[in-house]
Amino acid sequence: MHTAQPDDLALLVGRDRKSFIVRLKPGSQLHTHRGVLSHDDLIGASWGTQLSTHLGYPFLFLRPSTDDLVRDLKRTTQIIYPKDAGYILMKMRVAPGSRVVEAGTGSGGLALVFAQAVSPNGRVYSYEVRPEMQELARKNLAQLGLADFVDFKQRDIAEGFDECDADALFLDLPNPWDYLVQAHSALSGGGFFGCILPTTNQVSCLIGALEEADFGLIEVEELFLRPYKTVPARLRPMDRMVAHTGYLVFARALVPLETSSQ
Amino acid sequence: MHTAQPDDLALLVGRDRKSFIVRLKPGSQLHTHRGVLSHDDLIGASWGTQLSTHLGYPFLFLRPSTDDLVRDLKRTTQIIYPKDAGYILMKMRVAPGSRVVEAGTGSGGLALVFAQAVSPNGRVYSYEVRPEMQELARKNLAQLGLADFVDFKQRDIAEGFDECDADALFLDLPNPWDYLVQAHSALSGGGFFGCILPTTNQVSCLIGALEEADFGLIEVEELFLRPYKTVPARLRPMDRMVAHTGYLVFARALVPLETSSQ
Amino acid sequence: MHTAQPDDLALLVGRDRKSFIVRLKPGSQLHTHRGVLSHDDLIGASWGTQLSTHLGYPFLFLRPSTDDLVRDLKRTTQIIYPKDAGYILMKMRVAPGSRVVEAGTGSGGLALVFAQAVSPNGRVYSYEVRPEMQELARKNLAQLGLADFVDFKQRDIAEGFDECDADALFLDLPNPWDYLVQAHSALSGGGFFGCILPTTNQVSCLIGALEEADFGLIEVEELFLRPYKTVPARLRPMDRMVAHTGYLVFARALVPLETSSQ
Amino acid sequence: MHTAQPDDLALLVGRDRKSFIVRLKPGSQLHTHRGVLSHDDLIGASWGTQLSTHLGYPFLFLRPSTDDLVRDLKRTTQIIYPKDAGYILMKMRVAPGSRVVEAGTGSGGLALVFAQAVSPNGRVYSYEVRPEMQELARKNLAQLGLADFVDFKQRDIAEGFDECDADALFLDLPNPWDYLVQAHSALSGGGFFGCILPTTNQVSCLIGALEEADFGLIEVEELFLRPYKTVPARLRPMDRMVAHTGYLVFARALVPLETSSQ
Repeated sequence: MHTAQPDDLALLVGRDRKSFIVRLKPGSQLHTHRGVLSHDDLIGASWGTQLSTHLGYPFLFLRPSTDDLVRDLKRTTQIIYPKDAGYILMKMRVAPGSRVVEAGTGSGGLALVFAQAVSPNGRVYSYEVRPEMQELARKNLAQLGLADFVDFKQRDIAEGFDECDADALFLDLPNPWDYLVQAHSALSGGGFFGCILPTTNQVSCLIGALEEADFGLIEVEELFLRPYKTVPARLRPMDRMVAHTGYLVFARALVPLETSSQ
Repeated sequence: MHTAQPDDLALLVGRDRKSFIVRLKPGSQLHTHRGVLSHDDLIGASWGTQLSTHLGYPFLFLRPSTDDLVRDLKRTTQIIYPKDAGYILMKMRVAPGSRVVEAGTGSGGLALVFAQAVSPNGRVYSYEVRPEMQELARKNLAQLGLADFVDFKQRDIAEGFDECDADALFLDLPNPWDYLVQAHSALSGGGFFGCILPTTNQVSCLIGALEEADFGLIEVEELFLRPYKTVPARLRPMDRMVAHTGYLVFARALVPLETSSQ
Repeated sequence: MHTAQPDDLALLVGRDRKSFIVRLKPGSQLHTHRGVLSHDDLIGASWGTQLSTHLGYPFLFLRPSTDDLVRDLKRTTQIIYPKDAGYILMKMRVAPGSRVVEAGTGSGGLALVFAQAVSPNGRVYSYEVRPEMQELARKNLAQLGLADFVDFKQRDIAEGFDECDADALFLDLPNPWDYLVQAHSALSGGGFFGCILPTTNQVSCLIGALEEADFGLIEVEELFLRPYKTVPARLRPMDRMVAHTGYLVFARALVPLETSSQ
Repeated sequence: MHTAQPDDLALLVGRDRKSFIVRLKPGSQLHTHRGVLSHDDLIGASWGTQLSTHLGYPFLFLRPSTDDLVRDLKRTTQIIYPKDAGYILMKMRVAPGSRVVEAGTGSGGLALVFAQAVSPNGRVYSYEVRPEMQELARKNLAQLGLADFVDFKQRDIAEGFDECDADALFLDLPNPWDYLVQAHSALSGGGFFGCILPTTNQVSCLIGALEEADFGLIEVEELFLRPYKTVPARLRPMDRMVAHTGYLVFARALVPLETSSQ
C-alpha cells in the first residue's frame, strides 16, 4: 500500500529533525511542538509526502525504520543501540523461525529487534524479574504490533529457564556469570550465547566463567558508530559521538565429551 | 533437532580456529588440513560436540552464524562486513516480508543477509550486470538454501529496475549517483535508500546528488569493529583491526509536493 | 623549588574538578565559584598540597601541564587539541632549537606548544592577518611567559613569509593550498610541512596541490582520544567523546632535480 | 645548514617508501636493498634532494622526524608509539629544562623522546634492571647524539630512585603498582605521574593503588591513529590500522595534609 492505513506505524519528522512515531487510529490526534496533526488526515495520505500541522509546520510522513523504533521506545533503562542489535543478529543467526531466549527484558529494545527478526514463525522468550519493567516492555511491543511473537515471563532466572532447545540466548544484566548453568541448559547443543556488558571488569569475569561452564569460541568485540555531517562540499565527522555502549561477548554452548552421544 | 540432518549447514572449527562450512550430503567427504571427515559420520551427530578427523584432529561441530556464512562465501569481490550488514537491516527495516532491491549483486554477501532476513514471505531483487558474477552469487545462495528468496536479474540498471514499490533499495557499486532516478522509481513513497562507498569523494558526490533527486533525511555513518583478546586476566584489544570497510549512506525517497496525491 | 614563587603559573583544581590557572602576583586575588584565594597565600605554599578558599572550599595546588594550559587559553577560535599538538611535535621534529613558522596564529594554542618545545634557543614565527586575533595570542603567550620565543607578524601570507630556512612550517587556515609556493620558499630543503583541516574536501584539495608544489612523502592521519572512567572495579570508557578535531596532513618540501645543486 | 654535515642524522627514503636512517661518517657506506650510497657523497648534498645509489635507484635525502627516529630504533621490546609519546609530553609538561625519571628504559624509545624534549638544560634519569637492555638503549641514544641528556641507571627500582624532586616520572613496566611509594618519593610535590599498560586488568589494579598512594587527578585515556590513503580523488582510510598500543594512565603526586608544611 502506498497510502497509510489504520494501525500502520508512522514516523513524522519535522524540518528541525524532531520526530514522532504513532500508530494510526481513526479519531486520534498527534500533538507536536509545532501544532496538531489529525490521524484521520494521516490515514490515506501517501508515504513519503510532506504534511502540515494546523499551524502550517511541515512534517515528512514516513514508515519508521527499526532504528527509529528502538530510539523512540519508552524507556526507564539503558536501551540497546541499533548498531549493537544488528550485529547481534548477525553473530547469533537470529532469523525468521529462530527461537530466542533473552533476560532481562528491560524496556524491550532488544525484544523488539528479536521479535521482528524471528517473525512470523519464530519466537522470543523474554525473562524479567521486575514486574513494572516487564509491563513497560509488553506495552512497548504491543504498541508496535510485535507482542504476539514474544512470551514475557516474570521470573528470577536463577530458577532456570523453561526452554531447553533455544537457538540463541542473550543476557543483558549485570552479573551474567551467575546464570551460565541455566543458560547452557536452555540452549540447544552448540547454541549461540551473547551478552552486553558496560565494564571491562565484568567482561573479564564473564569470559573466565564461560570457559568453566562448557562454552567455547568466546569472542569479545565492541562497535563504534561515527556519524558525519552531510554537507557535500564540507564532508566531515560530527563533533561528538557516543564513545561506549557496551562490550559484546559471544560464545557457543558446547556439549562436553562425557555427555555427548554420537 | 539436536542432531544434524542431511542438507543442514554445518560449521567445523579446528583447535587452531581454522573453520569449514559444508552442506551435509550422504556419501560426501570434507577434506581438512588435518584429515578427513565423512558427512555420513556428521549426519546424526549432536550439534555442539567435538568430532575427530581420521587423523584424530578434533573439530567443534556447530551450526554457522550469519557472520560465519558471510565470511565463508566464495568471492571475487570485496564482501560486505557483517557489522555493516546488520546495521543496514536496522536502518532500512529489512525484516520478514520486506521487498528489497539491490545492485550490484557481487558475490552475493548482502543478498545472503537480505534473503535470510526477509524470508519466508519477503523477496530480494538482485541486479548484476556481469553474468559470471551473477552466476557465482546464485551458486553461493543456492548452496545456503537461500536462492528461493532471491530474483537474480542480469541487467545494466541504467535501464531501470522492474520494481516500483520496493520497501528498500541498496546500491553497492562505485557510481550510485548515476542511478538515483531509477532507484527513486523502484522505491515506494518514503522507501529506504542505502549505499556503501569506500571513498570520501564518492560520499560527497552521492549526498549532493541525493538532495537533487528527491531524497531526504540523508545520513552518513561508519562503523568500527574492535576485537579483543579473550584472556580473562589480560583483557585487551587485539593488536590490529580493520580500519575501514566503507561509509554507509542512508536516505528516504520523498514524494515532491507537485506529484503527491492525497 | 617545591614552594610556589611569584610569577609561577599555578593550577587550582576544586573537588568538582573545576579548575583555574593563574600567574602568581603579590597582592592579587583569585575569585573562584567557591570563594577567594589570595595570591599572597599561594606564594610560598607547597606544590601538591590542598589549600582552601575563604569559604573553606578545598583546591589542589599544582603546576599546570601543557594540556591544562592549552585548554585554559582565552580563545575566540577553535583551539588545537593537545593530542594533535603532541603528535605534530613528533612528526615535524619540533624540538629545542627548531625554527618553526606557523599561520594563522589564531588564539595562540599551537604557538604556545611550539614556543615551549623550541625554547630556549629556537624560535617561532607566527603569522596572523587579523590584528585583534594576534593581540589575543600575544597576550595569551605573554601571560604564560612564552612570548619571548615568538615573533608575531601581522600579515597576509599571500605576500610570502620573511623566513627562507625554517625547519618546519604549519598552516592552520581553511585554504592552505593557496599558500604552498610561499610555504615551500619559507622552508629549508626537505623541511617539514604540516596542516590541520576539518573536512575531507579540503584534504583532497590540499594533497592534490602538494603533489604539484614539490612536496613529497604526503601523509594524512587522524587521532581519536578515548577517555575512561577511573573507577577500578568498573573500568569503562566515558559515555561520549570528541569524534573529530581535524585531519592532520604532513609532507616534506622537496628540492626538484633541476634546481638542486650537488 | 642546507647541506648535510658529518655527524648529521640522515633519512633516505626509496621510491618504495623503504627507508634508512644513518649518522653521516666520512668513509662509510650505506648498503640498501637497491644499491650502495657512499657517505662521502651524502656529506655536502642538499637536504630535500633526490640522490641515487650506484645502481641508479633514487632515494630522497632528508632529516628524520622524531617519528622516524622512534620507528627506526633497534629494539628487543615493544616500542612506544609516537602518537602516545607526543601526548605524554603534553600531559606531563615535559619541556626544555624538565627533570624526568623513567623506568624501565627498554630499547630507549621514550628516553629518546624525553631526552630531545628536555634538552639542552633538562635531564632524563632512566632506570632499567636488565643490563643488556640498558646497553642497547645507551647505544641507540648515543647513535642519535642524545645520550648526553640521559643518566642511565641499572637498578631494580624496588630499591627506590635516587631523585627526590623530579618534575615528571613515567613507568613503562608490567607492575607499576609495586613501585608507587618509590615513585611518589622521587617526584616533587604535585609532580606528574604517567604509565602505559596493555591490559584493562592492569589499569584497574593501578588506579586502585594510585588512590591509596597519595596520587590524585587520575586519568585513563587511549589514542587511536587512523592513517589515510593519499590519493586526492579517492581519499579513504587505510584498510587496516593498529588497534591498540596501550592505555595511558596519568596522575599527580599529592602532598597529604598531615605532611604538608605551609
